[in-house]
Amino acid sequence: MAPAKHPAKLNLGDYLPYLVNRVGTIIADQFGEEALAPHGLSIAMWRVMAALSANGGQRQIDLADLTSIDASTLSRLVTRLTRIGLVTRARSTSSNREVVVALSAKGRLLVARLIPSARRIEADASAGLTAEELAVLKRALRRMYRNMTARPTAAAGARAKRIAV
Amino acid sequence: MAPAKHPAKLNLGDYLPYLVNRVGTIIADQFGEEALAPHGLSIAMWRVMAALSANGGQRQIDLADLTSIDASTLSRLVTRLTRIGLVTRARSTSSNREVVVALSAKGRLLVARLIPSARRIEADASAGLTAEELAVLKRALRRMYRNMTARPTAAAGARAKRIAV
Repeated sequence: MAPAKHPAKLNLGDYLPYLVNRVGTIIADQFGEEALAPHGLSIAMWRVMAALSANGGQRQIDLADLTSIDASTLSRLVTRLTRIGLVTRARSTSSNREVVVALSAKGRLLVARLIPSARRIEADASAGLTAEELAVLKRALRRMYRNMTARPTAAAGARAKRIAV
Repeated sequence: MAPAKHPAKLNLGDYLPYLVNRVGTIIADQFGEEALAPHGLSIAMWRVMAALSANGGQRQIDLADLTSIDASTLSRLVTRLTRIGLVTRARSTSSNREVVVALSAKGRLLVARLIPSARRIEADASAGLTAEELAVLKRALRRMYRNMTARPTAAAGARAKRIAV
């Protein structure tokens, strides 16, 4: 174990994992309640739809990379999104063995309606930060995610083998 | 609604709420699985114990401020921690009407054992960031949390009226 500077105490207000997690949670909770819940969507379902909207139809394995959602969870999400008519699964035109996930017309319409809310909550959350601070923040967060996916733990290997997008 | 620069698309890899949330989640998941699950603790239970360890016994209302956990969730957490012998509830010595939550001897011992793991995962997550980047990152995250708690939404009002610690 690495030696700790203050082994007996841990000040949450200066503890990076806490500072990150509470921000991530409060944004997801507010966006979920305000924008997604009225449509019966979770944050994870929204991520899938946003990724399909930005990148077009995807194989499930590529969609997992784009959303940082593990394969088995993603499969269940796509099934639910398909059932409610927001997403379709179809054989690839280039390879009959491949299944491609894509937004339905209804799904595209819903994403287009939700994107302004998503942009607004991002703007609300980052109000008062300079462009430079925002750039440092995003770069640091990408680096942290890569650090965590590269940690040599069984848990990390099983769940988070995605590379940061 | 605020006008969006790219109304039709949202690139998750550059979308701040996504970048924050996936880092917060992966750190909490790994710390939870590696360090907390063996002791039957959740991240929220750990936060309560860390706050009590750093600040001594607390009224539940002050503990809610220290942990950013809402009062009713916190009350359930304290009950569970009391049942497994990690925390005690006692009348305040200064005011008989006040209940003070504190770590038990067993709780103090467990926090002391967990703090090195908590410091290590923080170090792993932030590896490669300079001291200046870390300072910008923490300041930006505190600002974002304040921004979110100050948003005039019903959801924010009901759930997240805590001030950033």
